Amino acid sequence: MNRIYFLLLLVAPTFVSAQSSDELAIRKIYDKALSEGQSYQMLDYLCNKVGARLSGSPGAAAAVEYTRHVMEEYGFDSVWLQPVMVPHWVRGQKEIGRIVNSRKMGTVELSVCALGGSVGTGPEGISASVIEVKSFEELAALGTKNVQGRFVFFNRPMDPNQLQTFTAYGGAVNQRGSGASEAAKYGAAGVIVRSMGINPESYPHTGGMRYATGTPMIPAMAISTQHADLLSRLIKDDKSLTFYMEMHCQILEDAPSFNVIGEIRGSEYKNEIIVVGGHLDSWDLGQGAHDDGAGCVQSIEVLRIFKAMGYKPKRTIRAVMFMNEENGLRGGQKYADLAKQNKETHLAAIESDRGGFTPRGFTIGAPEGQPEKRSKIQSWKPLLEPYGLSDLSSPGGGADIGPLAPQGVTLIGYLPDSQRYFSYHHTSEDTFDKVDKRELELGSASMAALVYLIDQHGLK
Amino acid sequence: MNRIYFLLLLVAPTFVSAQSSDELAIRKIYDKALSEGQSYQMLDYLCNKVGARLSGSPGAAAAVEYTRHVMEEYGFDSVWLQPVMVPHWVRGQKEIGRIVNSRKMGTVELSVCALGGSVGTGPEGISASVIEVKSFEELAALGTKNVQGRFVFFNRPMDPNQLQTFTAYGGAVNQRGSGASEAAKYGAAGVIVRSMGINPESYPHTGGMRYATGTPMIPAMAISTQHADLLSRLIKDDKSLTFYMEMHCQILEDAPSFNVIGEIRGSEYKNEIIVVGGHLDSWDLGQGAHDDGAGCVQSIEVLRIFKAMGYKPKRTIRAVMFMNEENGLRGGQKYADLAKQNKETHLAAIESDRGGFTPRGFTIGAPEGQPEKRSKIQSWKPLLEPYGLSDLSSPGGGADIGPLAPQGVTLIGYLPDSQRYFSYHHTSEDTFDKVDKRELELGSASMAALVYLIDQHGLK
Repeated sequence: MNRIYFLLLLVAPTFVSAQSSDELAIRKIYDKALSEGQSYQMLDYLCNKVGARLSGSPGAAAAVEYTRHVMEEYGFDSVWLQPVMVPHWVRGQKEIGRIVNSRKMGTVELSVCALGGSVGTGPEGISASVIEVKSFEELAALGTKNVQGRFVFFNRPMDPNQLQTFTAYGGAVNQRGSGASEAAKYGAAGVIVRSMGINPESYPHTGGMRYATGTPMIPAMAISTQHADLLSRLIKDDKSLTFYMEMHCQILEDAPSFNVIGEIRGSEYKNEIIVVGGHLDSWDLGQGAHDDGAGCVQSIEVLRIFKAMGYKPKRTIRAVMFMNEENGLRGGQKYADLAKQNKETHLAAIESDRGGFTPRGFTIGAPEGQPEKRSKIQSWKPLLEPYGLSDLSSPGGGADIGPLAPQGVTLIGYLPDSQRYFSYHHTSEDTFDKVDKRELELGSASMAALVYLIDQHGLK
Repeated sequence: MNRIYFLLLLVAPTFVSAQSSDELAIRKIYDKALSEGQSYQMLDYLCNKVGARLSGSPGAAAAVEYTRHVMEEYGFDSVWLQPVMVPHWVRGQKEIGRIVNSRKMGTVELSVCALGGSVGTGPEGISASVIEVKSFEELAALGTKNVQGRFVFFNRPMDPNQLQTFTAYGGAVNQRGSGASEAAKYGAAGVIVRSMGINPESYPHTGGMRYATGTPMIPAMAISTQHADLLSRLIKDDKSLTFYMEMHCQILEDAPSFNVIGEIRGSEYKNEIIVVGGHLDSWDLGQGAHDDGAGCVQSIEVLRIFKAMGYKPKRTIRAVMFMNEENGLRGGQKYADLAKQNKETHLAAIESDRGGFTPRGFTIGAPEGQPEKRSKIQSWKPLLEPYGLSDLSSPGGGADIGPLAPQGVTLIGYLPDSQRYFSYHHTSEDTFDKVDKRELELGSASMAALVYLIDQHGLK
C-alpha cells in the first residue's frame, strides 16, 4: 500500500491529495464512532429510561426532552423544538383473542394485540365465526353473503424466500394497513391479521392501520405467526368455531408534540442544509430500540462525531428527530412545510429507519430529472466500500424525509442488513438488548461518512 | 428482467441456458433453506438438548451420537465415525479471582475463568501482587527482577477500530495462547489475561492456551474486559495490591472421540470429494451455538438441501463434523491423515467457523502455484453477489481443513459478517437465542450454492 501510494504521489499529486484527505477523514470518523462512540449509551437511556414513546404518550414527551437535552449538552450551535399536533391513540388494557369452542382444544387464548389506530370492541367484546382469506381478491370473491357478521382472518404470510425482508414486508402489509376497511365493505365484524413477521413467533406485531372514508370502522387485531398457523388449522377442522375479540383501544383528540432539531451551522454555505434523521416516536409494546431509537441516536452521533474530531462543516448539518412516523407522519410533513415556508434550501436528507444493524449501503432517491446526483454519490463507492457500504444501487429515501421530495431534495436511506429487522419490528421484542454496540456504531459512522462527502463535495 | 432475458436468448442461447440453470439451481437452494430449512431446529437440539461439548466430555459424546443420528435419518448414502484420541481438560469447580486488599474497594470478586488447557492452582490457591503489561516486549524489558513471584496481567485490548473483528482478535490473542509460557520465563506465579472481547463486558472469555516445552506450567486465567479495566485502575492506585487466584482445572489422559461424517456419493466423479464442515466440539461455558454448532448444522443442511431438491451431485459431497478444533485440532489432523492414507482426492473443503451470521462472502486458499482455482471461484461472483456474497477477495480456509493443504486441496472459509462474533465467542453468552434463524439459513444456502458450483464446474 505504501509503495503504491508513493508512486501515485509522483504522477498525480492533486488527485491523490484530495482522495487521501477524504480517506483520512472517513477513517477518523469510524475511529471516533468505534473507540469513543456515544450512540450506544444514548440508546440505552432512550430504551431503558424513557422506553416506549407512541405519539401523544408521556414517553414521547420524555423522549423529546431527553434528545433536546443531549444535543444541548453536546454543544451543537442550535437546538430547538418544532411544534406539531399528532394523532393520539391508546391501547388500553391487554387485548383478548380467544377461540371459544374448538372441538380439539376447547378454549384457546391467543397471542394478539390491537393494530394501531383501531377502534375498540367495547367492553362486552365481539363473538363471531372466522373466515380465512389470503388476499383482497379472495375476500371480494367471497362477498357479503360469506363475510357478513364474521371475522375476516387475513393470513397471507410474508414470503421467506425474499432475500430482502423489506420486500417480503411490502408483499404482505396491505392486509394490516387496509384489511379492516376492505372487510368492512362486506359487513365483517372485525379483522384478525397475521403478524408481519417471517419466522414462527410467539408474540404479535402491532403497526399502523387506516380506515378508508365511507366504510364502517371495525376493530382490527394482529395475531402472532404461530397462532395464525394454529387458528388456520383449527378453522379448517371446525367451520363453526367461534372467536372472541376484546380490545379497549381508543382514538383520542390530537395531542401537541414536537420534532427535535439540533444543528451545526456551515462555515461556507450556511444556507445549504443537510439533514440526518430518524423518528423519535415508537410503538407502545417494546422500547423502540431498532425502530427507531437507533436512527435517532445515530443522527445525533453524526453531529457529535464532527464536533469531537474538530470538523467544521461547510454546509449546515441538522439532526432531526421526527415525531409520529408510526401513525401519521405529521412530524415529517411539518418539517417539510416549515422548510418551504422559511425558504430553506435542503441539499440532501438521510434517514436511518431500518434498524441498527451492520452496514450494507444507502438507498438513493435523486430529485426528478437529476440522476447526476445519484451518480455523484455512487462515485464515492471506492471510499465507502471498505466499510461494508457496497450497495448504492437501490432507489428510495425514508418515510419522514419523503415530504421534502417536492422541494428537489436528494433523499437517502441508510441501508443496514435486513435479516433480523422483522423479528423485532413493532413488537415487545424491540428492546435495547437486541442492538449490537458495534453494529449501531458502524451505522453512525456510515451516515457521518456520507454527510461528510456531501458536505465537502456537494452533489453537483 | 424478462425482456432482457428474452433478448439474450436470441443472441446467445447456449451461454444463457448454462447461466440460467445455475441461477435457477441456486435460487432453489435458497428457497429450500429459507422456506423449509432444518438447520435452526438442528441447532436448537445441539444447543438446548446437548449443550456444551468440550473434547472428551459427555456433551461431546452426545453431539457425536446426535449428528450421526440426524444424518442417518436424512438418508445420506453413508454416515460413519472416524475415531480420534483427543485432549481431555476439565475446568472443575468455579474459579476464584479476587482482589484482596484494595485500598479503595476492599475485597473485590472478579469475573474470571480458567483458560482452556491451564493447570490449576491447587486447592489452597495462589496469592501474589500483580504487574500489568501490554506486550511480550514490555514483559521482557521488565525481566525477572520485576516479574518473579508475581501475577503478570496481560491487558492489551482488541483494537475496536479494526473493521474486521477477526483482525482485532489476531492482534491480541497471543496473550491468551502464549502469555503463560512467556511470563513463566521470568518466574511469574501465574497470568491474568484480558478477555478476547471488544466491548465492555461483564463475563470472561475462555479459549485455548499452550505451554511451551521447557518452561514451567503456571496457571492462566481470563478476566472480563470490564474487570480488566477495573483491575488496571486499582493497581495503578495501589502497587501493593494482592490478587488471589484459585482454579481447579486439570489436564487428564487423552480420551477417545470421533469425527462424524455423512456423504452423498457422486454420480460421475465419485472419487473427487468436496468437504463441507464445521467443528463439533465447543468450549464448556456456553452452548457452542455460533462456535461452532452453526457450522455443523449448516454443513449437514447442505447435503439435506441437495437431497430435498433432488439434486444428484456429480462429485462426492461430505459433511464433516470435526472433533477438537478448540484445544488440539486432532480431528482435522486425523481426517487429513486418513485422506492421505486412503489415497482420497479432495477437490475442495469449505469450513464454516465464524458464526451463524449474515453472509458476506468466502475466503479462498488456493493450493500453491494454482491461483487459477481462486480465479475460477471468483468468476462466479455474479451468481453469488445477489445473495450478499460479494467478498471473495481474502485468503484463508479454516482451522480444521488446514491439514488438507499439503494434499493440494482448495480451502475455503465461509465468511459471514463479523461484528457480533466476539460478543459471544468462548463465553457463557454463546447460546441458541443469539442465533437468528434467517441468518443461519442464509449461511447454509451460501455454502450449498458454492458446493453446487464446484460440483457442476470443477475448479479447472
